Amino acid sequence: MTEPKADPMVGELSEAAVLGAILARIGPSAALVGPGDDAAVLEAPDGRIVATVDTLVHGPDFRLAWSTGFDLGWKAAAVNLADVAAMGARPTALLVALALPEATRLSFVTALADGLRAACAALAPGCAVEGGDLTVSDTLTVAVTALGALDGARPVRRSGARPGDALALAGEAGLAADGLRILFDRFRDADGRPVAVDRGALRPEQRRAVDAQLRPSPPILLGPAAARAGATAMMDVSDGLVLDATRLADASQVTVDLDPTALGPDPDAALAGGEDHALLAAFPATMPLPEGFRRIGRIADRGPGAVTVAGAPYAGRGGWDPYRDWDAAGG
Amino acid sequence: MTEPKADPMVGELSEAAVLGAILARIGPSAALVGPGDDAAVLEAPDGRIVATVDTLVHGPDFRLAWSTGFDLGWKAAAVNLADVAAMGARPTALLVALALPEATRLSFVTALADGLRAACAALAPGCAVEGGDLTVSDTLTVAVTALGALDGARPVRRSGARPGDALALAGEAGLAADGLRILFDRFRDADGRPVAVDRGALRPEQRRAVDAQLRPSPPILLGPAAARAGATAMMDVSDGLVLDATRLADASQVTVDLDPTALGPDPDAALAGGEDHALLAAFPATMPLPEGFRRIGRIADRGPGAVTVAGAPYAGRGGWDPYRDWDAAGG
Repeated sequence: MTEPKADPMVGELSEAAVLGAILARIGPSAALVGPGDDAAVLEAPDGRIVATVDTLVHGPDFRLAWSTGFDLGWKAAAVNLADVAAMGARPTALLVALALPEATRLSFVTALADGLRAACAALAPGCAVEGGDLTVSDTLTVAVTALGALDGARPVRRSGARPGDALALAGEAGLAADGLRILFDRFRDADGRPVAVDRGALRPEQRRAVDAQLRPSPPILLGPAAARAGATAMMDVSDGLVLDATRLADASQVTVDLDPTALGPDPDAALAGGEDHALLAAFPATMPLPEGFRRIGRIADRGPGAVTVAGAPYAGRGGWDPYRDWDAAGG
Repeated sequence: MTEPKADPMVGELSEAAVLGAILARIGPSAALVGPGDDAAVLEAPDGRIVATVDTLVHGPDFRLAWSTGFDLGWKAAAVNLADVAAMGARPTALLVALALPEATRLSFVTALADGLRAACAALAPGCAVEGGDLTVSDTLTVAVTALGALDGARPVRRSGARPGDALALAGEAGLAADGLRILFDRFRDADGRPVAVDRGALRPEQRRAVDAQLRPSPPILLGPAAARAGATAMMDVSDGLVLDATRLADASQVTVDLDPTALGPDPDAALAGGEDHALLAAFPATMPLPEGFRRIGRIADRGPGAVTVAGAPYAGRGGWDPYRDWDAAGG
């Protein structure tokens, strides 16, 4: 008999052993049929289900020197919960497709499972991992499907904004990009390779920015709240305020006018920065905004530009496109 | 102005351009909200939804010398449709998370979209791609989430088989593994690297086996039919008949006795071969099997072994475990 290794690599274990370690961490199922069968069976109380998928890929989406397994699980959950929330829905379940290099440590995988569970508990109570898939890959990849319930509300689409509506935001604008900048500036070696984050070396506001990047906390429950409050349009701000506002403007055939005085001390950073997963929503101007949303602009008749800032065309960089912007560095 | 390239690489295009090319191929949406918003909204007519995810990774799951983009899209759809069918459900929607190397040709991506659509049309009419996600990655990865409706039936789990039940199979047993063997034997160069499949060099039955491997056609509609006919347990045979029958036996706390005389000319290949995505189901012995299912054994009281073959313990190789069996070769 050989001694079990303290922290084996997944390539040394059977699929069943890795799966068992994950299932032991993800917490109790709330589904009609949870993990362990060919598929999960979930309740869809009002006869509809909201469904989205988003993938985090080692390299373009995260660096292992910066993100722990817990961070990665948390972020993979959070970004998908935000897409469900942006339809006005309450997240109910995650399915997680994990593709792991054989040299991945089991402790990393269990930490990832812990992060998935913790993000659900913190951001979308009642939502749990109800299924998934485990494969080997040269590239660590986490594809999460999130499902949600509308509880009788109509889905809030990008296309419903009307001229005269107030434009409002819940969550951060630019903070996650600020965190990424700090990581690139402060935590790379002489050759540009990412090195571990020394949180003690950061000021509290820098730490908050790095956390927003590595472990974002979008205001998930404000999505259904906005739907109940009568939001006419809503979306998740994942690629930067201007780029995503452009999408909302195009879908609604309106112009979005952003108020830079409402965007904090560094409006340019707020306009361009991605990955905050804030909720951008339009509301009828006559009604008070639901708690947690702040006014950042207004919806105007469609003009020559999809997005204006204080009424003028926006000339800055619009946001993040992974096909354009990835620097192909690993780490 | 530069001329558009005839077949650009995705790294030369914006995410929106790649996405647009895919959306132009996947066909009409049948959802309440289809592709283009933060999430899809799908009908769940009886208040429940079946959900599963499965990933195909370049290397362990496919070789690009053997699989075309169309094959890959088809197979990624088929294996997930089979998991929905194995619960007794009718597939209604796919979400597709594509992680593409920057050098991937656009024509490969559009062929993959064609394959997804064609598999849905052929195997699960009414099911369509209703959402997805596009990322860059060093490793070509296709994670498909499939959703389905039970239409009032109870989900058919692995755990419901009872002693005395008939064990039945719909679909192939061993054919896909035979196809993989042909690919490994016939379509590699002197260094063992995969080379393109010359279908003209194959006999018809070999071509059928290679097709079963590269472009499987599991009997999706027989899943809901089995549920209506009263199946007590069902599962998708993805990792080999003995291995998956062991899972059914363990979940149901019974012993599965397989009848080798019902397994075709090469029972050993049928017992061990994976990736057929046939449906293995138990039915009360007193009722006729639904059309498309054939009897391949019976459910017995739990004995010392989970699976027996003609009443005797099975000594052969059980099936496919990607963590154990992948040879780490690319191609």
